[in-house]
Amino acid sequence: MLDRAELLWPERTAVVGDTPLTYGELAGIVRWLACDLHARGLRQGDRVAALCENHPRFLALHFAAARLGAILVPFNTRLTTAEHRTVVERAQPTILFADRTFAPAAAELASTHPELEVVWSDGAPGASDDAPRAALVLATDPAQLYFTSGTTGRPKGVVLTHGNVLTHALMAVAELRLDESDTWAHIAPMFHLADAWATFAITAVGGQHAFLPRFDARATLDLFEEHRVTVTNLVPTMLNRVVHEPGAAERDTSSLRLLMSGGAPIAPETVRRVVETFDCEYVQTYGMTETSPYLTFSLLSGSQRRMPPAEQLAARARTGRPVLGVELRVVDGQSRPIPADDTSVGEIQVRGPTVTPGYWQDEEATAAAFTEDGFLHTGDLATIDATGSVRIVDRAKDVILSGGENVYSTEVEYRLQEHPAVLEVAVYAEPDADLGERVAAAVVLRPGVESTAAELIAFCRAELAGFKTPKSVRFLEALPRTGSGKIQKRALRETASD
Amino acid sequence: MLDRAELLWPERTAVVGDTPLTYGELAGIVRWLACDLHARGLRQGDRVAALCENHPRFLALHFAAARLGAILVPFNTRLTTAEHRTVVERAQPTILFADRTFAPAAAELASTHPELEVVWSDGAPGASDDAPRAALVLATDPAQLYFTSGTTGRPKGVVLTHGNVLTHALMAVAELRLDESDTWAHIAPMFHLADAWATFAITAVGGQHAFLPRFDARATLDLFEEHRVTVTNLVPTMLNRVVHEPGAAERDTSSLRLLMSGGAPIAPETVRRVVETFDCEYVQTYGMTETSPYLTFSLLSGSQRRMPPAEQLAARARTGRPVLGVELRVVDGQSRPIPADDTSVGEIQVRGPTVTPGYWQDEEATAAAFTEDGFLHTGDLATIDATGSVRIVDRAKDVILSGGENVYSTEVEYRLQEHPAVLEVAVYAEPDADLGERVAAAVVLRPGVESTAAELIAFCRAELAGFKTPKSVRFLEALPRTGSGKIQKRALRETASD
Repeated sequence: MLDRAELLWPERTAVVGDTPLTYGELAGIVRWLACDLHARGLRQGDRVAALCENHPRFLALHFAAARLGAILVPFNTRLTTAEHRTVVERAQPTILFADRTFAPAAAELASTHPELEVVWSDGAPGASDDAPRAALVLATDPAQLYFTSGTTGRPKGVVLTHGNVLTHALMAVAELRLDESDTWAHIAPMFHLADAWATFAITAVGGQHAFLPRFDARATLDLFEEHRVTVTNLVPTMLNRVVHEPGAAERDTSSLRLLMSGGAPIAPETVRRVVETFDCEYVQTYGMTETSPYLTFSLLSGSQRRMPPAEQLAARARTGRPVLGVELRVVDGQSRPIPADDTSVGEIQVRGPTVTPGYWQDEEATAAAFTEDGFLHTGDLATIDATGSVRIVDRAKDVILSGGENVYSTEVEYRLQEHPAVLEVAVYAEPDADLGERVAAAVVLRPGVESTAAELIAFCRAELAGFKTPKSVRFLEALPRTGSGKIQKRALRETASD
Repeated sequence: MLDRAELLWPERTAVVGDTPLTYGELAGIVRWLACDLHARGLRQGDRVAALCENHPRFLALHFAAARLGAILVPFNTRLTTAEHRTVVERAQPTILFADRTFAPAAAELASTHPELEVVWSDGAPGASDDAPRAALVLATDPAQLYFTSGTTGRPKGVVLTHGNVLTHALMAVAELRLDESDTWAHIAPMFHLADAWATFAITAVGGQHAFLPRFDARATLDLFEEHRVTVTNLVPTMLNRVVHEPGAAERDTSSLRLLMSGGAPIAPETVRRVVETFDCEYVQTYGMTETSPYLTFSLLSGSQRRMPPAEQLAARARTGRPVLGVELRVVDGQSRPIPADDTSVGEIQVRGPTVTPGYWQDEEATAAAFTEDGFLHTGDLATIDATGSVRIVDRAKDVILSGGENVYSTEVEYRLQEHPAVLEVAVYAEPDADLGERVAAAVVLRPGVESTAAELIAFCRAELAGFKTPKSVRFLEALPRTGSGKIQKRALRETASD
């Protein structure tokens, strides 16, 4: 995709920022980087790990690895060295491409794994005259390995092939109508697919890449303004913080045409605020690392765009309908499709060219992940309506079984999110002698705003059935999160005060 | 793609015409057809041949075969029974799905191949309750087999995989911005990829399919008007005939947003007339069966759309730039890229996810088709400019070597096409004792218009160098064509009057 961008638009801007790059220049850096890594012994099929914040050199590494046919293993920068060590042992990379910011972590890793050569991401470009030719890679060859952050058990390496990545890029260009006039902001971590997919899709159309090394609400708004950003994807927590940033509505964000969110369910209340504040299109996304990542978009069809605004907003706040090329079904325990009544609940299962062939050197985990007829278990529970739009109600493992009733935690979370004092919330199960489990909530309040457990419980009870209403609410400074930013409900359950 | 269309838009029109069908109804017919073919013993990996004109049941067959994991083998309806027999022997289909129009041909085939069961395309739908579940097909599994019409040697079966076909559909949706508001006219034969690719791409976006059983210029204009067609692809000869059809400019073709042409080079003069007559966007395409088929589109970038109209027209009349996902190079005999000066000539070679893995059970032909580093030889000679746009000058085998000079036949053809008396033209080599080869032209005149060889030779000489100017011109009622409609220059050479 980069070769094509260089062929068609050598003079067009690829990277905006302090040191802007044209596509011709970016391709030159990639050739030099490929040359350098090749000189250090990196060959087709070898793994190259990356420990990087968001910046153009990390973008270049994606293409340099692909050029050599080497497999990119992006490290989650928020993990501990012990966790990185496990990934090194599983993936056996020969090179670690790292930012100097992470020099201590890199040194620690290299101390126990001397075979791992550290290459600094800010190295000065050299000659690339003897650049190796682009490797002959097949669609079925691995392009990337993403390791799950591993809250339980040993981490699993999700294999994404060149076919997965390329098909996903084409799908995204087609569905989101990306083109050369788009400027994508890399704000969510590029070591995660929520952002990394855009590396390829934006380059494929000759759009512009803007970078924020790591998330910050005010800096996000600055980036939007300064570089006339048109499209980006944020996780709901980030989006929530950006819309609540003081002065957000007064910023000139007129260039924004599309804000997406994904990686976790988003409260309809947040969607309403996003659309109000930025006056742009909003698309909810749902996906997994295993699926490159997107499975659904809450994009509206032509006829849906003629619905009243409130209905449109409701449709946009849903999980969405399957994207082009993805075969999606919502089924009961016997693999039978559930009724499309938006009430029955089943597991989402998917199949298609963007789905991983499996986990790295882990036949057992791979076998467990797929059904007999080749569908991937997502582990996500959802309803589906007559328009094919799904609505995730919970992770299968997060459903609360209280007094014989299923309580889907997202429904309670969405209600609490509507309360003006609530910034963030997680609803989870606490053990209960009578009910088996009881509904509990952990809440982060907005700065300077107060509330009480009794007030929030009453607020829920006004809209929800008794068995869905939290029996307890505790207030925290921050919610416990995994390295990739997902709320750790298990940690909340383990620290429950029963 | 059809399953998704049914899930998202069961009530939306899929097929327009005398018996319109919704996507729900089309999916029902496909399930019934899959059920019927399964009951007749068709299994995953088996071949099902088709001898059909353009109609909705042929559309349905594409999806029914895919559902079973069976391989579709579209027969060129213009070939002789002897030629079909060769394809049957190579592909060994177990079922021939045929129109009753072709009953004599089907009977002849069945007489020598009793293992081939004939299924009529107009069979009445039955129950589909016990429809087999969709097969688990991999991206690398064959979906279709297209046999070359075989002017020389035994026919080769181009294997297209599910991955090839799906990736091409996503590419086309992305590049051509296809969406649900599009109505595609199946006018070029659906047994050829020039049209068949749209079967999938249009269904993927929930657009509408319109059908003309076989090409006719007046009926094409009727179809455009009656069904408010928005987009189609025609071979240059068809497009030429449509724009010259009496009253073409007076028809209400305001729904047309995009006319494409492909399958053969098109004269800039024809492009000018198309744009003038229909006042719609025009895109030149270039591709091969081996590449699903499109390799380039003459789509303009944003900055090119701000060029003066004459320059835009010139850019649109070029072969075009590589489509998304295709890696394209123009190289000399040593596989070195030629200068992007739009003057140097080299062979186009391509690589990517829409390129065939090879020929059906023919390792020799497969090996010969690819370079060592996995690029497909197209056999087409072209120049390339600084914007990455290629311009095909000739098929390698059609280049005329006259007195030590290379003459690219298309350049001479384009000039002759500008003459008001010329309807169609082919320029080819005749043996010559002095020059080795000399340039010759075969011309079909417009009805009721006269011209002479001397006049046309003088017309060429006014613009072209002497060595490029035809030494002889002969007038024909029609040009000799292969079954797939390509001009047979070999036949012209063989009947040369030297």
